[in-house]
Amino acid sequence: MTYQLKYLSLRARGEPVRWILKAIGVDYREETIDIFKEWPSRKREFRFGKVPVLEVDGEQLHQTTVICRFLGEKHDLVSRDLWTTTRQMEVVEALHDLTNNMASALLGRVQRNEEKQRAMVGLAKAQFPVVMGNIEGRITDQGWILSQQMTWVDVFVAAYLDVYENYFPGVVAKFPLCEALRGRVQEMPAIKTWRQERPAWHPFEDPEGLVSPEGGS
Amino acid sequence: MTYQLKYLSLRARGEPVRWILKAIGVDYREETIDIFKEWPSRKREFRFGKVPVLEVDGEQLHQTTVICRFLGEKHDLVSRDLWTTTRQMEVVEALHDLTNNMASALLGRVQRNEEKQRAMVGLAKAQFPVVMGNIEGRITDQGWILSQQMTWVDVFVAAYLDVYENYFPGVVAKFPLCEALRGRVQEMPAIKTWRQERPAWHPFEDPEGLVSPEGGS
Repeated sequence: MTYQLKYLSLRARGEPVRWILKAIGVDYREETIDIFKEWPSRKREFRFGKVPVLEVDGEQLHQTTVICRFLGEKHDLVSRDLWTTTRQMEVVEALHDLTNNMASALLGRVQRNEEKQRAMVGLAKAQFPVVMGNIEGRITDQGWILSQQMTWVDVFVAAYLDVYENYFPGVVAKFPLCEALRGRVQEMPAIKTWRQERPAWHPFEDPEGLVSPEGGS
Repeated sequence: MTYQLKYLSLRARGEPVRWILKAIGVDYREETIDIFKEWPSRKREFRFGKVPVLEVDGEQLHQTTVICRFLGEKHDLVSRDLWTTTRQMEVVEALHDLTNNMASALLGRVQRNEEKQRAMVGLAKAQFPVVMGNIEGRITDQGWILSQQMTWVDVFVAAYLDVYENYFPGVVAKFPLCEALRGRVQEMPAIKTWRQERPAWHPFEDPEGLVSPEGGS
């Protein structure tokens, strides 16, 4: 199989896919698209008008959680029991849901719509610890989410925490099992190297200067 | 297994779950919660602060698409090949994504924020035919989505189309295979009966009076 990831030059919904590709250790290429300069004219190349897209043997597959689960199942980095995978997907989708609010908040900042920005950051900030608490309660004595060994779900969660702890400093640390899980995932050599080499935050998603819902910035 | 659905007294994200429960033919109870009068005080009963929730043997399972897939897999109304299920999930998640925009639009209406309402309806209206086109292209000669027989994915799609055609009249009819699929699903006796007996639109989600993004209402 050949894999090519096409996504914006952002962390956002891209990091979970990148981290899983690195965790399973397959070769892949990535093409990044600048959200301001290139995306408006390139949107139509994509069947759903959305990215990330993973081209699998040349065929476009979109939807972040669908891409990630496919990679996990294809490369055997999964749990196999139905109820277990269902409970894992529940936290995957809950965490992923936050990207909708955060995307709206970041768009609000670009549009200089402070009310929208504040409201959307507020929604994400309120829900983030709720989701974290539910993940924390599902980490086994081996340190993985409803599993005795690492699955793609752990990598997915770790990648999002690595992004979100910058938007909501101090929250991840309140959940020590989540914090430890994230630490173990990001110490994997391929992910460690990527974290050192990856580009700095794109201005669109830079946590610096994002308003706080309480009033300050 | 005992199933109890807890959701708002809305169609919205509830209909796909209800239709799948009826299509597989299991007994279930449903408790509805009024979004205005009851939801604010009852939100905390739910581990993620969100509904729909399906209680499975008393345990809360949330996230619409996760609930629906679980029911399909548990009751054998699924495809089993990885690439097939992946391509089915791609359209499931894409269609489900529209509920975020529509929920924001309906909230905007309650808040008398016409700008928000118009913007959110506009996003959903632009994306709906894109998703429909992708579904249309995946319907087999047997009339089901990437399958020779009906799966939960068909029921899920039909239930959402039954809601969305009221928000965007005339769109579904442009996709004759989707229209035929929806017709076949809603002719299933348990679903046909439900469509005749279910409550009228709750004022929160009534398509009547929703603004059009072009300017009129």
